Amino acid sequence: MPTGSQPVDSGSKPHADGMATAAHLLGDRWTMLIVRECFYGTRRFGDMARNLGIARKVLTTRLKDLVAMGILERRLYHTEPDWYEYILTPAGRDLYGAILALLHWADVHHPELGEHVRLHHMPCDHDTHAVVVCAHCREELDPREVEARLPR
Amino acid sequence: MPTGSQPVDSGSKPHADGMATAAHLLGDRWTMLIVRECFYGTRRFGDMARNLGIARKVLTTRLKDLVAMGILERRLYHTEPDWYEYILTPAGRDLYGAILALLHWADVHHPELGEHVRLHHMPCDHDTHAVVVCAHCREELDPREVEARLPR
Repeated sequence: MPTGSQPVDSGSKPHADGMATAAHLLGDRWTMLIVRECFYGTRRFGDMARNLGIARKVLTTRLKDLVAMGILERRLYHTEPDWYEYILTPAGRDLYGAILALLHWADVHHPELGEHVRLHHMPCDHDTHAVVVCAHCREELDPREVEARLPR
Repeated sequence: MPTGSQPVDSGSKPHADGMATAAHLLGDRWTMLIVRECFYGTRRFGDMARNLGIARKVLTTRLKDLVAMGILERRLYHTEPDWYEYILTPAGRDLYGAILALLHWADVHHPELGEHVRLHHMPCDHDTHAVVVCAHCREELDPREVEARLPR
């Protein structure tokens, strides 16, 4: 595979860089859990700290990172004192599918992690899990059926 | 959301644990790149080290982790000296969708990372990217349309 045949650090490997970026963004346990918490509708520092059982200092750092990465937006919701809430940006919301795909993988391959929370898809009114499909034919993507090609 | 309302470390939060597991598995830049390399068909230590431009010591550690996590299987392919190759397990192959979903996110939200490798879906003969859909109705999953429910 062409992208597999060059040093990752050459700077000419967008997917390697994309992978590294995604890994950096989602790789930290707390970062992923904070984003998940935002998907659950939590917006405020105190609620996140309590729900996640995370040290406030760590939460402060991770929230700063997520804002810098354009995944969360910080909004003032109270003045004197100034209090902020954290909202998912469109880029942050776009992480949802990837996160659900990772969750499903963990549910299937690490069932020992315990009982699962059911995800209910309201439009079709069925319990669901993430399936990753081809944008064109909507069939599930299988590594044996996908070829990576360098741009023309 | 119920799962968002408990400390992560209580041990009673399967999805928190699932998230943490997924984050741990994929969070390391090199771990993701090694798995990607395996999807490209690379099996041998020397090929991985060269293709990824990774220090052999780091590669050794990450491969050991991936085998311990059940994502890669280590197989002897040459004796005296003993040489091993690394094959994706079924659990490892199941990471493909989640990885493609992360890659697509990075492509869309970090286009500055450079030119993209096109992914060609051979069965439908179209260039493609990952779309994460509902296992039941095959519509794209939107965080505003999915409800997390505790098991009955």
